[in-house]
Amino acid sequence: MKEQVHAAARRARIAAGTLALTTRADKDAALEAMADALIAETDAIVAANDLDVEIARAAGTGDNVIDRLRLDPARVAAFAGGLRDIAGLPDPVGEVVRGSTLPNGLRMQQIRVPMGVIAMIYEGRPNVTADAAAICLKAGSAVLLRGSSSAARSNAAIIDVMRAALRTAGLPADAIQQIPADDRSSATHLMQARGLVDLVIPRGGAGLIRAVVEDSTVPVIETGVGNCHVYVDADADLDMALAIVLNSKTHRTSVCNAAESLLVHKAVADVFLPRVIAALQDAGVTIHGDESFCAVHADVVPATEGDYAAEYLSLDISARVVDSVDEAIGHIRTYSSGHTEAIVTSSLVTSSRFTAGVDSAAVMVNASTRFTDGGEFGFGAEIGISTQKLHARGPMGLTEMTTTTYVVVGDGQVR
Amino acid sequence: MKEQVHAAARRARIAAGTLALTTRADKDAALEAMADALIAETDAIVAANDLDVEIARAAGTGDNVIDRLRLDPARVAAFAGGLRDIAGLPDPVGEVVRGSTLPNGLRMQQIRVPMGVIAMIYEGRPNVTADAAAICLKAGSAVLLRGSSSAARSNAAIIDVMRAALRTAGLPADAIQQIPADDRSSATHLMQARGLVDLVIPRGGAGLIRAVVEDSTVPVIETGVGNCHVYVDADADLDMALAIVLNSKTHRTSVCNAAESLLVHKAVADVFLPRVIAALQDAGVTIHGDESFCAVHADVVPATEGDYAAEYLSLDISARVVDSVDEAIGHIRTYSSGHTEAIVTSSLVTSSRFTAGVDSAAVMVNASTRFTDGGEFGFGAEIGISTQKLHARGPMGLTEMTTTTYVVVGDGQVR
Repeated sequence: MKEQVHAAARRARIAAGTLALTTRADKDAALEAMADALIAETDAIVAANDLDVEIARAAGTGDNVIDRLRLDPARVAAFAGGLRDIAGLPDPVGEVVRGSTLPNGLRMQQIRVPMGVIAMIYEGRPNVTADAAAICLKAGSAVLLRGSSSAARSNAAIIDVMRAALRTAGLPADAIQQIPADDRSSATHLMQARGLVDLVIPRGGAGLIRAVVEDSTVPVIETGVGNCHVYVDADADLDMALAIVLNSKTHRTSVCNAAESLLVHKAVADVFLPRVIAALQDAGVTIHGDESFCAVHADVVPATEGDYAAEYLSLDISARVVDSVDEAIGHIRTYSSGHTEAIVTSSLVTSSRFTAGVDSAAVMVNASTRFTDGGEFGFGAEIGISTQKLHARGPMGLTEMTTTTYVVVGDGQVR
Repeated sequence: MKEQVHAAARRARIAAGTLALTTRADKDAALEAMADALIAETDAIVAANDLDVEIARAAGTGDNVIDRLRLDPARVAAFAGGLRDIAGLPDPVGEVVRGSTLPNGLRMQQIRVPMGVIAMIYEGRPNVTADAAAICLKAGSAVLLRGSSSAARSNAAIIDVMRAALRTAGLPADAIQQIPADDRSSATHLMQARGLVDLVIPRGGAGLIRAVVEDSTVPVIETGVGNCHVYVDADADLDMALAIVLNSKTHRTSVCNAAESLLVHKAVADVFLPRVIAALQDAGVTIHGDESFCAVHADVVPATEGDYAAEYLSLDISARVVDSVDEAIGHIRTYSSGHTEAIVTSSLVTSSRFTAGVDSAAVMVNASTRFTDGGEFGFGAEIGISTQKLHARGPMGLTEMTTTTYVVVGDGQVR
């Protein structure tokens, strides 16, 4: 398996060499051709997916997982449309990040260039296959796609269609390759293909991400684990706070930017706790609260240490009353995964202290945690949300899939 | 040892929380106080260094290593002056990288914030201790300094002085801490203190860097291995080429931006090879060449595969004649460490092909490889030269020691 993965990576490197010299027009034409081909081959893709779904169902897979796995013509059309959107975005490659003429006359420019070979290791939805391939292609990099075995047939069908379209468009098919998912070791070989793979991006649950971070010798961008907090300050507009808590928790529970924990300043606890508990319970949310929350309503479950650290991804929320914004910041620095925190306050002083004090990829002031998203931020495409500090933090778009190089032009300068 | 390293990292995290809220004026005042204190304590620092030198000499350490280790009042004054230079640089923290008002009225800003806790693992010169501490402090991060055991007393003296100055300046002394070097495992514990340390930067030889990359679970920025090439094109000004080859190879041989390999286009080989061989030999350089080079002069040593991959850091150079710029690019993509490549050519077409085709942190067109340097690039301070593609590539200054966060301000927006 190692030889197979390394051989794929070597083919990808060669393809990346070609992509680095490919114009935006040619990349966009290929993306449009890929979108056309996906639409044209919808039946074949859905048929392959039917097999995946059948096998998953026979294995007793739960309905919500089946729902994520399932493709129908509308879903195929949606990700094909995503490819056209990416074709419409500016090319990040070639952007001059900075430049100057040095005192000795050297003209220095820092220029965005492709990353090279990117490996995606992911679970779940087959639409990630098309999205990731398109983002990497547009950013000038070859991609090695290692999805889950449960979606292997769907992914293979999508990748075959995209590769054929690349070939027709005159670009190397090896810019998009599937890495077999039937053997667990293929992921490990990818993460350790140092010198062949430039970047590994894991997308999936906390377990997958931890495994990649621990085993990888290739640089990794960690994505998407979100234990997000909403802090309702003493100076909060409580109607606004209620709407933001409800939206952050219940708008969609299975996503990384959903709120998992609620902190309330003691000065507003008497008024706000009964309201927020009632509203959350009406929405079907189970509250895991501290003594103050438990005292308000018998259905509040006493929170454990584990609750404060949990990313529920369900209709559950941990909740606590704090004495001050500093206590809220301390709690968040202790338990947060560094994804998104929100504060509801009308105080400029408190919001400044909060935004400077927490240490997360995004901070929302008087807005829902759900806004941390490449689409909402206007990036046009998103390959994931980074929760690490190196290279990219927060939603990652095309720019984050590039690196830079310094090009220095002189007329014979020596030191 | 693990508990000791983790305890230091936890203290550093607390100090980092304070530094994140410290103004530029206060950080600069602390840097000036540290510089004053280093000058005032020169005798104590040099005395500690004398002990290190004595022990190294007794252990039979070579003269060039001793020379790197040795401190005298002039060297202490030099790194104290470096601290004042860093105080004079703009603060990277707080810089707005991008910002916009989203269609729903949310005001989004991406802002530079401190990295948090940075671990430096390094060999050799004690001046790195002062430089690294100052750069991290200015960038708002706490630093854990793990130098070599051979410089342990010198480093301890420098760190003690800087910590005392921090305290006097009202900043937390734990922003700068020494990690014991007498136990090899301390470096491993640093690299694996995930969640406590945000970034590890190894600075030293290829062996150290490989060990850190392989063992670290904390994100790493690889620095400084340089197998740099000079390619003399068919359209080169040969006088300029000769000057650039000589300067790149011989200006300073022990540095990562020195040239280690020479490629010459066959069209100019007849004229250029005798000249460059004579000039390099006059400068004391041993040439490890291919058949074409060997045919010109009996003292050229036949090059092996290992020579093309070598970072000599000495008066040696590998050399080869190539048929085309594409063969030069192919050779470089195969053997280069991705640091700096230079081309000498008067052809715009060829230089464009070369700069787009090689895959390195810096490309010099008609200039010496020696210019890849934070000081030469005008960054004011440099913590190393990154040869990886993630986060920072090329010389790293203050900006590269920061991360960013998205601060989004609304008035109650929900999705």
